[in-house]
Amino acid sequence: MTDLQTLAVPAAVDRASELLARMTLEEKLAQIVGFWEKGDGEVVAPLQGEFTREQTLDEAMQHGLGHLTRVYGTRPVDAAERATWLWNLQRRLVRGTRLGIPALVHEECLTGLSAWRAATFPTPLAWGASFDPDLVEQMGEAIGGSMRTLGIHQGLAPVLDVIRDPRWGRVDECIAEDPYVVGTIGTSYVRGLQSTGVHATLKHFVGYSGSQSGRNFAPVHAGPREVEDVLLVPFEMALLDGGARSVMSSYNEIDGVPVAADPRLLTGVLRDRWGFDGPVVADYFGVAFLHLLHEVAGDLGEAAGLALAAGVDIELPTGDAYLAPLAEAVRTGRVDEALVDRAVLRALRQKDELGLLDATFDDEPPTTVDLDSPVHRGLAAQLAEESVVLLSNDGTLPLGHAGRVAVIGPNADRAEALFGCYSFLNHVLAHHPEAEVGFESPTVRQALAAELPTAEIVTAVGCAVDDDDRSGFGEAVRAAASAEVAVLVVGDHAGLFGRGTVGEGCDRDDLELPGVQRELVEAVLDSGTPVVLVLLTGRPYAIDWALDRCAAVVQAFFPGEEGGTAVAGVLSGRVNPSGHLPVSMPRSAGAQPFTYLHPQLGGNGDVTNLRSTPALPFGHGLSYTTFAHTDLEVDAQVPTDGHIGASVRVTNTGDRPGADVVQLYAHDVVGSVTRPVAQLVGYRRVHLEAGESAVLTFSVPTTRLAFSDRDLVRVVEPGAVELWVGPSCAERETEARITLTGPVHQVGVDSPRWTTVSVTG
Amino acid sequence: MTDLQTLAVPAAVDRASELLARMTLEEKLAQIVGFWEKGDGEVVAPLQGEFTREQTLDEAMQHGLGHLTRVYGTRPVDAAERATWLWNLQRRLVRGTRLGIPALVHEECLTGLSAWRAATFPTPLAWGASFDPDLVEQMGEAIGGSMRTLGIHQGLAPVLDVIRDPRWGRVDECIAEDPYVVGTIGTSYVRGLQSTGVHATLKHFVGYSGSQSGRNFAPVHAGPREVEDVLLVPFEMALLDGGARSVMSSYNEIDGVPVAADPRLLTGVLRDRWGFDGPVVADYFGVAFLHLLHEVAGDLGEAAGLALAAGVDIELPTGDAYLAPLAEAVRTGRVDEALVDRAVLRALRQKDELGLLDATFDDEPPTTVDLDSPVHRGLAAQLAEESVVLLSNDGTLPLGHAGRVAVIGPNADRAEALFGCYSFLNHVLAHHPEAEVGFESPTVRQALAAELPTAEIVTAVGCAVDDDDRSGFGEAVRAAASAEVAVLVVGDHAGLFGRGTVGEGCDRDDLELPGVQRELVEAVLDSGTPVVLVLLTGRPYAIDWALDRCAAVVQAFFPGEEGGTAVAGVLSGRVNPSGHLPVSMPRSAGAQPFTYLHPQLGGNGDVTNLRSTPALPFGHGLSYTTFAHTDLEVDAQVPTDGHIGASVRVTNTGDRPGADVVQLYAHDVVGSVTRPVAQLVGYRRVHLEAGESAVLTFSVPTTRLAFSDRDLVRVVEPGAVELWVGPSCAERETEARITLTGPVHQVGVDSPRWTTVSVTG
Repeated sequence: MTDLQTLAVPAAVDRASELLARMTLEEKLAQIVGFWEKGDGEVVAPLQGEFTREQTLDEAMQHGLGHLTRVYGTRPVDAAERATWLWNLQRRLVRGTRLGIPALVHEECLTGLSAWRAATFPTPLAWGASFDPDLVEQMGEAIGGSMRTLGIHQGLAPVLDVIRDPRWGRVDECIAEDPYVVGTIGTSYVRGLQSTGVHATLKHFVGYSGSQSGRNFAPVHAGPREVEDVLLVPFEMALLDGGARSVMSSYNEIDGVPVAADPRLLTGVLRDRWGFDGPVVADYFGVAFLHLLHEVAGDLGEAAGLALAAGVDIELPTGDAYLAPLAEAVRTGRVDEALVDRAVLRALRQKDELGLLDATFDDEPPTTVDLDSPVHRGLAAQLAEESVVLLSNDGTLPLGHAGRVAVIGPNADRAEALFGCYSFLNHVLAHHPEAEVGFESPTVRQALAAELPTAEIVTAVGCAVDDDDRSGFGEAVRAAASAEVAVLVVGDHAGLFGRGTVGEGCDRDDLELPGVQRELVEAVLDSGTPVVLVLLTGRPYAIDWALDRCAAVVQAFFPGEEGGTAVAGVLSGRVNPSGHLPVSMPRSAGAQPFTYLHPQLGGNGDVTNLRSTPALPFGHGLSYTTFAHTDLEVDAQVPTDGHIGASVRVTNTGDRPGADVVQLYAHDVVGSVTRPVAQLVGYRRVHLEAGESAVLTFSVPTTRLAFSDRDLVRVVEPGAVELWVGPSCAERETEARITLTGPVHQVGVDSPRWTTVSVTG
Repeated sequence: MTDLQTLAVPAAVDRASELLARMTLEEKLAQIVGFWEKGDGEVVAPLQGEFTREQTLDEAMQHGLGHLTRVYGTRPVDAAERATWLWNLQRRLVRGTRLGIPALVHEECLTGLSAWRAATFPTPLAWGASFDPDLVEQMGEAIGGSMRTLGIHQGLAPVLDVIRDPRWGRVDECIAEDPYVVGTIGTSYVRGLQSTGVHATLKHFVGYSGSQSGRNFAPVHAGPREVEDVLLVPFEMALLDGGARSVMSSYNEIDGVPVAADPRLLTGVLRDRWGFDGPVVADYFGVAFLHLLHEVAGDLGEAAGLALAAGVDIELPTGDAYLAPLAEAVRTGRVDEALVDRAVLRALRQKDELGLLDATFDDEPPTTVDLDSPVHRGLAAQLAEESVVLLSNDGTLPLGHAGRVAVIGPNADRAEALFGCYSFLNHVLAHHPEAEVGFESPTVRQALAAELPTAEIVTAVGCAVDDDDRSGFGEAVRAAASAEVAVLVVGDHAGLFGRGTVGEGCDRDDLELPGVQRELVEAVLDSGTPVVLVLLTGRPYAIDWALDRCAAVVQAFFPGEEGGTAVAGVLSGRVNPSGHLPVSMPRSAGAQPFTYLHPQLGGNGDVTNLRSTPALPFGHGLSYTTFAHTDLEVDAQVPTDGHIGASVRVTNTGDRPGADVVQLYAHDVVGSVTRPVAQLVGYRRVHLEAGESAVLTFSVPTTRLAFSDRDLVRVVEPGAVELWVGPSCAERETEARITLTGPVHQVGVDSPRWTTVSVTG
């Protein structure tokens, strides 16, 4: 399966290959595994303890140590104290092992560094809602700065899985259902993080979000065209344009082949096509799972051989497969040691690139660290504000000079409701109830009280997020009945493996609000008091019933430490909402999977009785002002290898300043394979004063319309293309038609992928 | 895309090529289209009228006529009268057109010939539940006999789509979720039908059942391995083992490529690999849909060219694309006439094979026809009886000497509830309320009254199948309260395009019983009277709540004209139930898609919070007696190109005679791609007296364990295989383990596909 000719160590001798030549097999294997140190000197495999023999870190690192993980992200410990521990450990590796190679330290950092008292930003679904790659880049830089200070070399983010099914629990870790939005915003995160010298990890490569019926780890039913044209797109952008330095292989299979054992993806696409030369790390326990869960390997040694041959370089967070089983497999000739050498070289070259081969750790660790500085908080606030989506509003919002306001619901006064599954707070601190949160995170109720100092706030919980106790309904209804307006804050609790309503291993087979929350909302609606419904969730829920009945509906995807303040700012009117939906709002779980990127027959039609349009379309989002999009002008004829020039005027037609996300969509009228009815080809957030107008000029590379043809060659075909701008994918406010001319254009890795947008007054 | 070298007319001159050589382009095109005559001399396109210009049949057949459809299946007309019309039309073609070629007459015949007063058999899902291929073959022969008598040459059945999602409306037309069950029973139908000289049509080739979220015509997300190893399997069996003479291309796309425009499937698989030489017919309007719905063709001429090049020979039921647009495309050089000739040759050769090139129609049409003879009714009764599945029973069934019985529910006394979507009754007669049904079809209530002559039957409708009127609940509850037992007969109404709860274009995004039927059942349950729930449905519904609360649950998939009697026989105890589930009973729509043929990660596990096991597993079915499966003995070592010998003892351990379906399952422990946790490799229905025992000896070709490897080569790999027999796929009552030995075996079209089973006392 693997051509061993290609595995030979390159003739050009670098420091990594010099080191490799001096290594014993055990020293090699030590470099391609990572360990998770739980804080008391033992390494552990918390997810699937039965797979892993516990051992001490001293035992684990006797031959060296490739990766060390979760130094800061396992327990609520003081970061400076932990840094001292880490520097000491690195010194032991440098001074106490034969080759003196420090460990590469990696950490989770999806919504901010996973460490106690570290800033926690909005969840990626909120990044998508902001449609603001520049701001996400700044956030990535802030996160990277903290990591760099603490001696962390690699961050396990961003998640570039394209959302395919909202039932899946990890949707809150994803950016959008559109691969271009995922690619642009994900790449911005990479650029920001890596600008600090910290390596980003693109995950999960590839297909994980497409699991059958939205169930974690379940088989992915996708053909090669869907993989190429949807699922791989953000990875291509973040690698080729963002220069990401590491990639994580995903747990799932696609059409029967586990990705972690698939050389066509991990070597053929990643390395041969895209030229990626960094290390591929396994998702945690993913190598062992080839034997234990996928059953494509008869034992752990065979699993190790399959993963190595495919191109998984580093096993995390144990050496279950890559230590003893792989050593035995190499010694008995079942696995070629050249495969080990290939992985070790990549691991050592990454350490060289990070300066680790020269590192002495003679410097002193930081003694005080501020992981939640005003810069962090400012970015967290801005991103939260930009990500809140106003779904509907009959004029009740903004609340302005409200008198008596009832603030009701399980997420109204609960700080955890602001954070995603991979936040330190929900991922780690949930297991340490004795520890304080460690940073400010005002709840919606707290922030609203501050926003509306003259208002009288009455509160009621009503119910929990996810049980069937309705005993609080009466109090909630009374509170609402006594008020001019009721703000109901409902939604999710993020958690792991069944301990949340959303998060890793928290999938759903319905998309109703969890527990009895819908009943609570309906009970309060029956009181007659106007209801402003606020959704603090990690996935889009089926809330079309609420759109019909509530005075206003506000969607905030876990908005982070400043999220309560941002939501309250939107409610009060201090913040004019400007977020737009990065996902379709579903009608029901039974209508899934669905994507706005469907061909004609994936939508409504005479051939099925069911409505397939979502409750609200991708791209939708209201403001307290209004915007008009007019005068779309385009180049009528564009060569298939060119750029489509398009300009559109956007005008703030209301009476207050606000920001719009201008969305340019396209539809390829006839293709040699079926094409989506709408596809976002460019977008730009723009701020306009009341009455102000701007012209946005798009330069769209034709490659944004590329697809894999019958032979899976990526091409741009000549022919008619419809373009439009509107308030969402579903509405054509101003439209035009162009013709792509010339021969079929074959797209390569050097072809441009990004739409540029300039703004003139 | 198509190698025109292969299109040349073969040198060996046959009658078809002689005829071809004499034809004008218009005469050629006339042979490769069909028309639907609506009964008053006009041809029509009822599904999508806007696509089709109405014209008279005289106009349509001036250059000849390829196919004529729905002669008997469009209106309730006397068959003999209609035969006279048909013979006259054929004489006009023979005598009045230049080349004198009669039309090939095709008709729907899925649940029996689609004609007024013709026997209507159980729906295919009930064939699956019977697990009785021999009986289905006899049914096919009976159907073919009626067709032959009436001058019909080709039947548009069977449906070989493997069930992938119960939300899809056409599930009732499918046989099972297991491709081997579909293949064996579907092939039996083909053998029976074709034994009478009528050609079968395998449909829908291929993938239609896998449409996204179960929505009719929606894109199929499947990789090539799933297509090969699941979806194509029944077609391969019915063609290579059953010798089916025609194939219908399906509406759907797979991974972006519409099948009707895919030469890899329609030519590469069908003809080059399998050697099929008969005509491929388009699903109705499917050629035009390449332009209108799939948008892979810019106009109808281009659609015609794509379909012809792919290998669609006959356009049905119009000439929307293959007449004027194709003529113009040929004349302007956009489509090579050799492609037309290839299709015409296939059409003419089929007519030659059917004797149509010699037919004069000088004979007289039948003057009296009995389409519902005692032979038909006997087969319909036996198949219905064998297909009723007893899902649960606390001992309340059989009813035996019941005193007062309440028979309640919208399907209790409604003959239409016995029939599928493609039955004449629901497909055609629904539009002619003035016409009588035309044959006996006792309802469950009527039949139960006859079965229990001493019982007092009280009745109540309770509610309709699919509205929200609960006004009948009170009467239903009172009827139940007054009785010893309440038989609730609920379920579906089959219809077309939104006019039913199941059927073509009647998809669902929930799997609750339609309308308020669940509420009716729960209201009656609350009365305290034991409830026997009878499901007359076209799909499996999520009824786990009923399994918990009802005294017994009986599942009958539209059981046909003798179905009411069969169900009543099961209730009374005259018939000992012996049907088994050909599909998993789902937990919810939000848990779809699901298949029992999932790899480990498609089921339950620690990595998702959701239960993925169905409410009841594939293969489940109770009896009034009990069966024990013991002493599974196997060949311990079997070469990869051999047969697995396995024997098992089945014993009727109860006190009354009954039939068991012995199910042999296998699990390939380690594969180079992921393998299902369970796979049916052989089955056999066997009747046993009380206390009787039999030994079943299976000879399973190893090819039943074959799969497409990483290079999509179909192979049998060496290694361990677990085998077991049990009451369903989910339970191992007696098990064994074998080892496949020797090299990887490459499977070809000549490899055996069928498991043979012999029974000894």
